[in-house]
Amino acid sequence: MAMSESGVYELIYWPGIPGRGEFVRLALEDAGVPYLEVCRRSESEGGGVAAIERLLDGAGPGMLPFAPPILRWNELVICQTANILQWLAPRLGLIADDEATRLAANQLQLTIADFVAEAHDVHHPIAASLYYEDQKPEAKRRAIPFTGERMPRFLGYFERVLARAGGPPHAVGSGFSYVDLSLFQLVAGLDYAFPNTLAGLRPELPLLTRLHQAVAARPRIAAYLASPRRLPFNKHGVFRHYPELDEK
Amino acid sequence: MAMSESGVYELIYWPGIPGRGEFVRLALEDAGVPYLEVCRRSESEGGGVAAIERLLDGAGPGMLPFAPPILRWNELVICQTANILQWLAPRLGLIADDEATRLAANQLQLTIADFVAEAHDVHHPIAASLYYEDQKPEAKRRAIPFTGERMPRFLGYFERVLARAGGPPHAVGSGFSYVDLSLFQLVAGLDYAFPNTLAGLRPELPLLTRLHQAVAARPRIAAYLASPRRLPFNKHGVFRHYPELDEK
Repeated sequence: MAMSESGVYELIYWPGIPGRGEFVRLALEDAGVPYLEVCRRSESEGGGVAAIERLLDGAGPGMLPFAPPILRWNELVICQTANILQWLAPRLGLIADDEATRLAANQLQLTIADFVAEAHDVHHPIAASLYYEDQKPEAKRRAIPFTGERMPRFLGYFERVLARAGGPPHAVGSGFSYVDLSLFQLVAGLDYAFPNTLAGLRPELPLLTRLHQAVAARPRIAAYLASPRRLPFNKHGVFRHYPELDEK
Repeated sequence: MAMSESGVYELIYWPGIPGRGEFVRLALEDAGVPYLEVCRRSESEGGGVAAIERLLDGAGPGMLPFAPPILRWNELVICQTANILQWLAPRLGLIADDEATRLAANQLQLTIADFVAEAHDVHHPIAASLYYEDQKPEAKRRAIPFTGERMPRFLGYFERVLARAGGPPHAVGSGFSYVDLSLFQLVAGLDYAFPNTLAGLRPELPLLTRLHQAVAARPRIAAYLASPRRLPFNKHGVFRHYPELDEK
């Protein structure tokens, strides 16, 4: 698919939370391409949560979505964060053009997705459909192995990946890629949700820390982070801060 | 990458459980290609769990693995089930050769992966590192929304996907694909782990039921299922049967 094909990227995601949509948004922002935040428009303009509901009900072309984020581009409707990024990144110049690098990038993106799902389930170990307040004892119990075992294991893995790549911290290949943007968001989310735990692990994560800083300093990302388009983390998203789940 | 390139497929996965490796195994079996089950060999032949540990320790080429399944083919080492299948399926003739179909297939495969992770966490809601016996009250509590909300939601979604595809039940495009094999395995796993719940949902799932039967009847799959290569589900894998988690 040629880069020159025209069409506006439309991102369909829950308004009000960064969530999994943020991984897609960071790629679009870093590339500096225009995109439409469908759900931030009013319902009378075809936006709001109703836009998601219509797609989940089967109103769009292509494969039925199970959940947002959803990326629409002309007649293509793509779901699942890693799937969207895999399609989008070559068009945005955010991944090299060889098979081994793309396989490695997708592998890492899927491992990030697994980690994000585990981070979510710390505050929702019983059911996503229940409030946190209705599963607090279980959340507190789950937080112990998450902060004590899973965070060190996943973050230590990514640190090793960066070390093996060599040079300035990049996850795959010799250059910058969409996976670096996702690792930035992962570190940002963990720093919001589990600041004590992350602070304790930081001495073991020099490359991940440098990567996070380098991404935040990229001109388009820095401008984006300072803009109202960047939604703050909050207690409705994937990463949530409850001090009782982040004790030392 | 041409189909004619040579090399033996090596599947590296925990011996003794079907687990996530089974989604890869079914594709290889359905295609009738030879493959090596590395960990079922003895350690003196380079097999056993030690083969996994060596790769996790960074002994292989390519991107560092986080967890099995791992597929090795010449110098390529690929991880993450959906990533492996996306690479493997075109080589095995298990996916059509157009972008929209491949995006749709990967989207579905990732949704299956999400569902499988949720099914696992029913018996391990607190930590994968603890025994089921150490998290039984939480598991029992989690089983209620899983069987009552998540199973109907995911399975109902796949049923709608099959209905939209039209014709004999296939998940994507007009023909058989690796996603159909994965849906077969998903139904088989749920039927083992949650037989009461699945029986109650069956009247709403005629296409998924037909797809499961059709896959089981494919000659190479039928031969595989009758062979000792097909490991039975058991209480060490992703899908586990505990009657207390499957009450009506």
